[in-house]
Amino acid sequence: MATATPYQQLEQEFRRLHAFRGVLALLRWDAAITMPRASADVRGDQLAALEIETHTLLVSPRVSRLLDRADANAQSLARWQSANLREMRRLHDHAVATPQTLIARMAKAVARSEARWREAREANDFNVLAPQLEETVKLVRSKAELLGQRFSLDPWDALADEFTPGLLAREIDAIFTPLTQRLPELVSEAIEVQSAVPVLPIEGRFSASRQRGLSVDVLKALGFPFDRGRFDESDHRFTEGVPGDIRVTTRFVLRNPFSGLLGTLHEMGQALYDLGLPAEWLDQPVGQDRGMAIEESQSMLLEMVIGRSRAFISFLRPLLEKHYGAAGPEWGEENLYRHLNRVARGPNRMDADELTYQTHIWIRYELERRLLSGELAAKDLRDAWNALSADRLGLVPASDVEGCLQDIHWAIGSFGHFTSDGVGAVIAGQLWETIREQQPGIDSEIAAGQFGSLLAWLRERVHAMGASLGVPQLVQHATGRPLTAAPFLRYLERKYLAEP
Amino acid sequence: MATATPYQQLEQEFRRLHAFRGVLALLRWDAAITMPRASADVRGDQLAALEIETHTLLVSPRVSRLLDRADANAQSLARWQSANLREMRRLHDHAVATPQTLIARMAKAVARSEARWREAREANDFNVLAPQLEETVKLVRSKAELLGQRFSLDPWDALADEFTPGLLAREIDAIFTPLTQRLPELVSEAIEVQSAVPVLPIEGRFSASRQRGLSVDVLKALGFPFDRGRFDESDHRFTEGVPGDIRVTTRFVLRNPFSGLLGTLHEMGQALYDLGLPAEWLDQPVGQDRGMAIEESQSMLLEMVIGRSRAFISFLRPLLEKHYGAAGPEWGEENLYRHLNRVARGPNRMDADELTYQTHIWIRYELERRLLSGELAAKDLRDAWNALSADRLGLVPASDVEGCLQDIHWAIGSFGHFTSDGVGAVIAGQLWETIREQQPGIDSEIAAGQFGSLLAWLRERVHAMGASLGVPQLVQHATGRPLTAAPFLRYLERKYLAEP
Repeated sequence: MATATPYQQLEQEFRRLHAFRGVLALLRWDAAITMPRASADVRGDQLAALEIETHTLLVSPRVSRLLDRADANAQSLARWQSANLREMRRLHDHAVATPQTLIARMAKAVARSEARWREAREANDFNVLAPQLEETVKLVRSKAELLGQRFSLDPWDALADEFTPGLLAREIDAIFTPLTQRLPELVSEAIEVQSAVPVLPIEGRFSASRQRGLSVDVLKALGFPFDRGRFDESDHRFTEGVPGDIRVTTRFVLRNPFSGLLGTLHEMGQALYDLGLPAEWLDQPVGQDRGMAIEESQSMLLEMVIGRSRAFISFLRPLLEKHYGAAGPEWGEENLYRHLNRVARGPNRMDADELTYQTHIWIRYELERRLLSGELAAKDLRDAWNALSADRLGLVPASDVEGCLQDIHWAIGSFGHFTSDGVGAVIAGQLWETIREQQPGIDSEIAAGQFGSLLAWLRERVHAMGASLGVPQLVQHATGRPLTAAPFLRYLERKYLAEP
Repeated sequence: MATATPYQQLEQEFRRLHAFRGVLALLRWDAAITMPRASADVRGDQLAALEIETHTLLVSPRVSRLLDRADANAQSLARWQSANLREMRRLHDHAVATPQTLIARMAKAVARSEARWREAREANDFNVLAPQLEETVKLVRSKAELLGQRFSLDPWDALADEFTPGLLAREIDAIFTPLTQRLPELVSEAIEVQSAVPVLPIEGRFSASRQRGLSVDVLKALGFPFDRGRFDESDHRFTEGVPGDIRVTTRFVLRNPFSGLLGTLHEMGQALYDLGLPAEWLDQPVGQDRGMAIEESQSMLLEMVIGRSRAFISFLRPLLEKHYGAAGPEWGEENLYRHLNRVARGPNRMDADELTYQTHIWIRYELERRLLSGELAAKDLRDAWNALSADRLGLVPASDVEGCLQDIHWAIGSFGHFTSDGVGAVIAGQLWETIREQQPGIDSEIAAGQFGSLLAWLRERVHAMGASLGVPQLVQHATGRPLTAAPFLRYLERKYLAEP
């Protein structure tokens, strides 16, 4: 038997890593869905043990040695193998740059600030969170600085390499600037155009079981593999798992017949991505998704762009009748379209329409960069939040819960998520423009509930590339053009102004 | 900061092991209860990766070195620490004696023979399983021989150290012999005594939701912590988890109002044991249960001895009325008692009464020892099974499914389980005799649904000892007498002959 090459031995090591990742996903899913409510302490120990194991594997001298030896023989590798080796190196370097002591300190700080965030929400007072948030931000900053030193990057850029690999702050700014310059007026103009068109209110109580039935039918139409996946209800929607066992959740609101469904579509975007990853590389780093921004692009495409389109609403109509007994003029397709695409300035991101959602992201993108650079102290976050809200949304949140306490992300040390949301929406716009050019019949297909060619396109152009390309390279590959905000802006202008 | 002693460093290592064990338990629970049905391949990889990790930890040079250094300083340890160190050594030695190549070969062989077992049941033909069973038995034999060489024990004794630590084959035989000598006549006499007493049949359909309601009420009365545990339905009842997150399952049969409840009691016996383990040692080897035989003793005590007693039936009566609307003479307490304790010779272990259950165990105990010694070839198992059934039960199974294919255990390489069942029943009898001596009011308490002093006794005398004593020492500690079958026999004689 021939001896395994260093590269082959690395594949073996990272196969274990993949198994651990799948186990971690199950531990998190169970904690949210099936775990007894008082067992969080037990679960915390299990998660910590497995995360340390994962980190230990990545930074082990053996992996380090094998990487050096595989790099020295890189010319013998095929293209996907090279890409895989590059991803292995990236994971290794990130792990090495983040010492376990810092990870342990962050875990503890995050546990504390998450608890404070909940207390602060109870008290409706940001000051309850502020001191602990400062500590968590400081630790994230330390991590960003360590990564930055290791990769000779600005701290923010070093972090961005985790959620939008291949995009630095300068490029992210170049994408956002044309969007944010146009956004305030676009919102005003859309509201004005829409004010001329009445929308009939949609009222009633929609039981969770009916809403579930609707979501299940939509998931089936989109090809969700119920024999290799689950669909559950949770307090905060999420997707967990690995291809082969993928678990989608959503949250149903009794008086809102659509929020649960749109959540399902959002999560299904990510699930379809995971399901389309390159089959022969599933247990290797190059077979993973390309990070949060691309994930969000798939979610936004399904939830915002397609899920609220006239074509999709045509497909949805008979299902609404089946599950909600929808009758009456308010359930007409045109009224549903207006209902689902109504633009309105409000304090809350999760309730926002497609347009003001970007405003919410823009506010957070700016704030998280200032928090991380140290320019903004955590204790001053409320003031900065309210000032930016006034400036960009034209409103000051009536309370902290409606304002700077609405999202948990920073309290749990998650920076870059909102940036990924913003970049993801831009990418969704560019993908959608290309799909429409290349598949002129796409709207009629969607209206007929035929998603096959849409999914085939996404799978071939995006999903099946795994992590073999950086974010801008992947968008270039999928659309044949560089990543810019122009297609997304064209989409918004047409949808809200030209063809309202 | 003082440097951690070798012993303290070992505690740290075994804390990780405890986390892995909890994760493995969740992976198995999820596979049986919530996992999508086609995801078994993904789960198999995850289980294998974590089992290898566990094994690697146990055999690591670091643990080996620390054990030697801690042993050299053992005189400085407190009593529980010494016991903990002894258990650490035992786990380490077992793991070292079982090479990873053998574990991997066994995992594959077991996967194949489990599949063949299902096919053989479909075909109702043992020959479909036989060749693959032979391979699995051979590998178990290799493992037993390796362990035997390592510990200078007979192969069977080396295995027994895993499921009844502290009991060798000679001692197990000494326990079983008086029981098996008396058993055939005891069964005949019991059947004769009972033939004089009519039993009204209990008929009807009992929905899973009603049966679940009954089980939940009984679990509540027994103090099951629903905020740190779950109760679910499964194809084959089991208990999984760790104290702090304990998960019990049972199986409901539509036309049998009691089998699901008795399953719940069986599993609750094990759960109560886990919940009563010494709190300050939960994440250490000495804080674990003392193996299968003691586990089974707790299950048998609850399911067979207490759960079918007149006192328990008094407690149960109002609950049967509440959940099943039980009315009519067949639901009278005396008829229920006769119904639940009816002795009848049948081919099936799982349907057996308390007395013939021991006959089933006896048959299996003998067969598994002959299989393992090589005296019986797997291909001859059917003939041997049928011959022993004829001899001891007075019947030959009508088919393989009703005979030698009824249990999955040997096909999945699980040897010693039935022995533990037998020893467990004997221990349950001895515990029960002592409990009745020391708590004369126990029957009235149980009839009143007061389980507090029963559980307190079990917790103090059995559960809280963890793995600090061997099986016979634990029984001696709990009852003040050596472990023998005499109390169990006295219990059976009185129940079935003296006070029928």
